[in-house]
Amino acid sequence: MVVSDRVLMGPGPCNPYPEATEGLTRPMLGHLDPEFIQILDETCDRLRTVWATGNAVTLPVSGTGSAGMEAAFVNTVGPGDTVTVGVNGLFGERMCDVADRCGAEVIRVDGTWGQPLDPSALLSAHPSPKVIALVHAETSTGVRNDVAAVAAGKGDALLLADCVTSLGGIPVAIDEWGVDIAYSGTQKCLGVSPGLAPLTIGARAWERRIARPQSWYLDLGMIGDYTAGATRKYHHTAPIAMIASLHAALGALLEEGLEASWARHAQCGALLQEGLEKLGLELWATEGSRLPQLTTVVIPEGVDDGAIRRTLLQRYGIEIGGGVGPWAGKLWRIGCMGHTARIRNVTLLLAALGELLGR
Amino acid sequence: MVVSDRVLMGPGPCNPYPEATEGLTRPMLGHLDPEFIQILDETCDRLRTVWATGNAVTLPVSGTGSAGMEAAFVNTVGPGDTVTVGVNGLFGERMCDVADRCGAEVIRVDGTWGQPLDPSALLSAHPSPKVIALVHAETSTGVRNDVAAVAAGKGDALLLADCVTSLGGIPVAIDEWGVDIAYSGTQKCLGVSPGLAPLTIGARAWERRIARPQSWYLDLGMIGDYTAGATRKYHHTAPIAMIASLHAALGALLEEGLEASWARHAQCGALLQEGLEKLGLELWATEGSRLPQLTTVVIPEGVDDGAIRRTLLQRYGIEIGGGVGPWAGKLWRIGCMGHTARIRNVTLLLAALGELLGR
Repeated sequence: MVVSDRVLMGPGPCNPYPEATEGLTRPMLGHLDPEFIQILDETCDRLRTVWATGNAVTLPVSGTGSAGMEAAFVNTVGPGDTVTVGVNGLFGERMCDVADRCGAEVIRVDGTWGQPLDPSALLSAHPSPKVIALVHAETSTGVRNDVAAVAAGKGDALLLADCVTSLGGIPVAIDEWGVDIAYSGTQKCLGVSPGLAPLTIGARAWERRIARPQSWYLDLGMIGDYTAGATRKYHHTAPIAMIASLHAALGALLEEGLEASWARHAQCGALLQEGLEKLGLELWATEGSRLPQLTTVVIPEGVDDGAIRRTLLQRYGIEIGGGVGPWAGKLWRIGCMGHTARIRNVTLLLAALGELLGR
Repeated sequence: MVVSDRVLMGPGPCNPYPEATEGLTRPMLGHLDPEFIQILDETCDRLRTVWATGNAVTLPVSGTGSAGMEAAFVNTVGPGDTVTVGVNGLFGERMCDVADRCGAEVIRVDGTWGQPLDPSALLSAHPSPKVIALVHAETSTGVRNDVAAVAAGKGDALLLADCVTSLGGIPVAIDEWGVDIAYSGTQKCLGVSPGLAPLTIGARAWERRIARPQSWYLDLGMIGDYTAGATRKYHHTAPIAMIASLHAALGALLEEGLEASWARHAQCGALLQEGLEKLGLELWATEGSRLPQLTTVVIPEGVDDGAIRRTLLQRYGIEIGGGVGPWAGKLWRIGCMGHTARIRNVTLLLAALGELLGR
């Protein structure tokens, strides 16, 4: 079976680091094998470095980023708990749905898609929420929300942050900012296949967590006994190959250096955004809050969204994403994450887009 | 990093088929790429063949076998629903926990570990349960439960079956037996890394399913729109590499032929069980209900469980499993599943065990 070789510049997955792909092919180990436990421990250690945290319970959840979101909510929110959620994109919307299914009283604080959330609106929405939740890097809009500012004003609340598209691409500082629980996904700026959700939970959230969450599979108390406990008690069979892949990719990322990875993402994002403007295209996300790793651009009048994306894929092997929700057909979302965040990919995409748009 | 090369004869994971490992390394595709959608469609088609079903909603859940269990329950069981669960091992126990977290009235029908469930006890436990649930192949005991007999007497109830360790290793016939919802795991007799849970749900269960399950991540209505719907509406990012791996392994399995795979598992199990008895060891699971792919054997008096398993691992690179729950330290669990189910592995393990036990 022949599979086309793509340059993945959509909202994720990105192209995986070669080390991540190689990690998938390591000889299979059992989930209780001492050699695998060592790989798992090192993976969790590397995740602590990437999250900038000392949290004991820092681990890869056995599902995609959305499983990370669900794990964060089911372990901190129960029936009747008040949760303030900032919504300025699809993933803020999703948080409301997930929290509501936990039986929470959801206080929804709507912002404008394409603009950052107002931290003070989020902080003043309710006097004593159990949890304040927001998305750091909104994959649906290309906007960075100011997690640090919200965390600084959280008071007694727990701060829950979605870092699916931010971790590894822009600075994330769990302990310094005071984030209580956060999750990410492997297929964005960590440069691994989709399938795992790195998660970290601090002591305050751990002490106030739901004793018996509605999800058995995502019960962090039980998962923590296996990944971080003294007994290594079996919970579910760990996704061995995916964890070995994450282990390898994090090794490559830390060898490059976190700051260097952020700088590479920043440089590629800046080149891409400058280049798009030179092509006469309009950047959509508010200036000053634009993510380097995920750029949104307005589709010009008269340009056929589907035809351009199809031709990019078929003629050049380049994938970019379309808009979602109210912005379907009106925006393109161009990712430059993980191993994809290379100058050559930016140059290629700009040249290809220039050819197709005749500019 | 050097990783040891194991012969995986524990209760799972098994050694993956070479095709499964190769599938992991295919060039990454986006989850909305037409080429990936084709791979996903073919994967679901191949799963229908392996499950022996025409069910439209037949798909790989994005998590391990336990996520499959949770998906089966949260989509069919809500607060106050009555669920009859057969319990003759760890995974029956787990079903009770998962169903209870859904708010179900759990009618627990205990059998004896090491012996098959009595179908009539399960069927007569409650006059009108919404769901009757049982494990086909109990990985904790090596016992096969008679799913077909329970399904034949289910009446108006939905029949929910755990086929984690059975699918691909012994006959499973969803439509012929009348199973309404079933799930499996990739790391057993399908010969893939852990990380996906093939699931199938029939029309009766689909019609009576929970409209808005407590789990967003495992909401089959939403997942089905992506995998089997006309719109292919994005739900969560599919685990691309793992699905490509499952696609490849199912291709290999169906090229060998399902009957041939069952025969290979049967032959290896028979050779193993005969060989263990020749070594003077006592098989534990009741004769007539022994699984070929997972054999339980009593640890002889005076033999050090930990020392034997450690030496098997360190000297020979062979992993076998220990007992669980009340049988920890008293049993070994020896798997012969997927690519591990080869005569040479049986011969090797018997020879190594013979050396270590001095028999």
